[in-house]
Amino acid sequence: MTALLYALRGAVGAAHVLGDGDLAAWETDWRKRYRGRALAVVRPASTAEVAAVVRLCAAHGTALVPQGGNTGLVGASVPDASGTQVLLSTTRLNRVRAIDTDNLAMTVEAGCVLQAVQQAARDAGLLFPLSLAAEGSCTIGGNLATNAGGTQVLRYGNARELCLGLEVVTAQGEVWDGLGGLRKDNTGYDLRDLFIGSEGTLGVITAATLKLFPLPAATMTALAACASLPRCVALLALARERAGPTLTGFEAMNGFSLALVRRHLPQLRQPLAPAPWTVLLELSDAESAAHARGVLEALLETALERGLVDDAAVAESIEQSRTMWHLREAIPLAQAEEGPNIKHDIALPVSRIAAFCDATDAALARAFPGSRLVNFGHLGDGNLHYNLQAPEGVAPADFLREHEAAVNAVVYDAVVAHGGSISAEHGIGALKRDELARRKPPVALSMMRAIKQALDPQGLLNPGRLL
Amino acid sequence: MTALLYALRGAVGAAHVLGDGDLAAWETDWRKRYRGRALAVVRPASTAEVAAVVRLCAAHGTALVPQGGNTGLVGASVPDASGTQVLLSTTRLNRVRAIDTDNLAMTVEAGCVLQAVQQAARDAGLLFPLSLAAEGSCTIGGNLATNAGGTQVLRYGNARELCLGLEVVTAQGEVWDGLGGLRKDNTGYDLRDLFIGSEGTLGVITAATLKLFPLPAATMTALAACASLPRCVALLALARERAGPTLTGFEAMNGFSLALVRRHLPQLRQPLAPAPWTVLLELSDAESAAHARGVLEALLETALERGLVDDAAVAESIEQSRTMWHLREAIPLAQAEEGPNIKHDIALPVSRIAAFCDATDAALARAFPGSRLVNFGHLGDGNLHYNLQAPEGVAPADFLREHEAAVNAVVYDAVVAHGGSISAEHGIGALKRDELARRKPPVALSMMRAIKQALDPQGLLNPGRLL
Repeated sequence: MTALLYALRGAVGAAHVLGDGDLAAWETDWRKRYRGRALAVVRPASTAEVAAVVRLCAAHGTALVPQGGNTGLVGASVPDASGTQVLLSTTRLNRVRAIDTDNLAMTVEAGCVLQAVQQAARDAGLLFPLSLAAEGSCTIGGNLATNAGGTQVLRYGNARELCLGLEVVTAQGEVWDGLGGLRKDNTGYDLRDLFIGSEGTLGVITAATLKLFPLPAATMTALAACASLPRCVALLALARERAGPTLTGFEAMNGFSLALVRRHLPQLRQPLAPAPWTVLLELSDAESAAHARGVLEALLETALERGLVDDAAVAESIEQSRTMWHLREAIPLAQAEEGPNIKHDIALPVSRIAAFCDATDAALARAFPGSRLVNFGHLGDGNLHYNLQAPEGVAPADFLREHEAAVNAVVYDAVVAHGGSISAEHGIGALKRDELARRKPPVALSMMRAIKQALDPQGLLNPGRLL
Repeated sequence: MTALLYALRGAVGAAHVLGDGDLAAWETDWRKRYRGRALAVVRPASTAEVAAVVRLCAAHGTALVPQGGNTGLVGASVPDASGTQVLLSTTRLNRVRAIDTDNLAMTVEAGCVLQAVQQAARDAGLLFPLSLAAEGSCTIGGNLATNAGGTQVLRYGNARELCLGLEVVTAQGEVWDGLGGLRKDNTGYDLRDLFIGSEGTLGVITAATLKLFPLPAATMTALAACASLPRCVALLALARERAGPTLTGFEAMNGFSLALVRRHLPQLRQPLAPAPWTVLLELSDAESAAHARGVLEALLETALERGLVDDAAVAESIEQSRTMWHLREAIPLAQAEEGPNIKHDIALPVSRIAAFCDATDAALARAFPGSRLVNFGHLGDGNLHYNLQAPEGVAPADFLREHEAAVNAVVYDAVVAHGGSISAEHGIGALKRDELARRKPPVALSMMRAIKQALDPQGLLNPGRLL
């Protein structure tokens, strides 16, 4: 056993330094695209233990990869293949430290599972609105390290906007206590937002103070069929005007997305007939279900009158509302059933989405005849999951092997040309690191490198990721 | 004329390099606490000219102080007394570059006056919600460089939360184009939020893309009399629960604040009788005035029933609503009429405000008998303007000279003990630099210094401010 492993055992207990046996759960990413090998998996249970682990790794010049629930989609939380990196798992840092109802804030440790955070808030009669597919296994630390998005961003913002303060172990193994429930604090540089979204490359997030909200009195969901993407965008503007900040969800799904759900999950009832686009609207109301229904029905009526919408269904029960959300959430599953595909998590100014799709749909159809586009996402945030399935009858694996790089080039060129982002909510990690180096303005890249050098001069925190 | 001045004239035109004559308007801060002397006042009209000015100063090793509307309250935007610093005024960068209504965004140059930005949004049928006392002369670049707050933070956030992207001239005189109207963009470190609030010490903000919102259909204002601060906090919780995100203002004023307004501005009608605390509530409604009134009246009725409120008045007209806001806005003026005073712009967790005030009011009364507390502010954000007037009959100048440092020590010790911030929305600048060095955790200070060194290794951007 090396001196480092011996010291790590001393720091966190021998039972929590895993070096032998099957470490695949920590070494393989969720999408099974990255399989690394760790020197050891270390599972500290407190901030002081995290600090000790970081100091030991720094003293030995050993790189360290922080990992939460390991549900990331860009390979940022698994070690490389060298067998020399220590994987620091935060899952034992899982206490809810405090809930402050008067201040609408809670302080939780990094390894708390998102769903547990949501539940703890709800148990206190409050709402923590971050919500995404992996919520049953992702951790809040990972959500913050990657600035996660999800389905409530339109109203509540990304993980960044939901965080009031952080506790971080620096690359030097010092503890920065930046927790606290302040809504205003202009005392120096915004370190909090620098760590949020830094994917474990600047420090290890060990705890966070999160914003809470009053639970809405009622939530009301509807589906609307639109003939085109510009009509979806016009419906969004109308919904924002009429519902104001009570509009908490606005998801769009193209016809092929729901056709795949129909094919692979026929048990899910689809309230509306197939349409070029289907929009899911959600209102969260402080007053009552009746009030929410009134606002939603009136806005859909106006949308029908104006020809923005061809058909619409308002959920009559919580059960129906869940079914509508299931349709939206089932798309990735239906896609997987159809076969491997090429995913893009992109953002655009809402005003440029229709032009982007017009141009890019056509370019893909020309370059890859028969390829099929699964286009859905958080339209209210300008965030599309713009994914390509192989042509019917073509083996997906062959299609991906031959065309993935060329498909990415077409899509990302168009994204940049339309003022968009090549990573809206998934981050960069290993997957998009080279793409970022090519496409980010050199001035920004050189500032990012200067900051990395300033805060982690040894370059030991999650090396080879992001930068 | 020195070589630098000659070169600056070449870069921006001789008419826009002011070296002789009365430069007091640029050299003296708004509160007249700092009077410096500039080598020259340089007024570039474009981003390229700003970059040229920064490069020239860097080449000559000359420090540079960026200035917008010069309305800051902490001495961050005036040169020191050495006569060696170049003052870079952004006021000629005053174009609205674009308004994108579908994307609810606008791109403006740093020197645009806040009121002009608000008006341009309103002309496009939209709302830019940042609002503060200096809005007629402060610039958006200054608002962002200091992360300004104001009266709408409860609903819309600080300047930080209202900014989607920045254009910045770096310390090396390069232009970082980080503009763009994206709601989601996880492509690397959050440079935007690092520059926001950095008070001109990391780069010069030259333009910004700002978030816009639909104009509310109606705004409704009320005043409520509360017998104690805990009742104000309970009223806030009730208002948040009932009005949800339509609650856009929640300002509290102690009895002495309004007594000073009564004394010095007797022409302002006060709808409610004097009370220990008076709260101003504002709702912004997407539906109608009638709906807003219904919600506001119902919530005040509940508050009366529960004994949180002893009396209340809902504005019956826009005129009455303006009068209510005038009362709140007149407090600083009434204070100035009463004589110089000691100001504190502090933030606390809302849940700690009552305990903080109990303890600190008493400590001040013990240490400075007869001193009079003007306590008012954005209670919904936990932000108090906690200001002390000299005892009646004592010359304010004498009181300040003798006691200001001791008063600050009492207040700031208590703020830190209650988990608060010594600068909620005004920033650090020159005024609170030493206080920050004493009170910020050393780990945070050393990260801030490392970042400053990384981005401005020559230390020429606004030296001696903030850090």
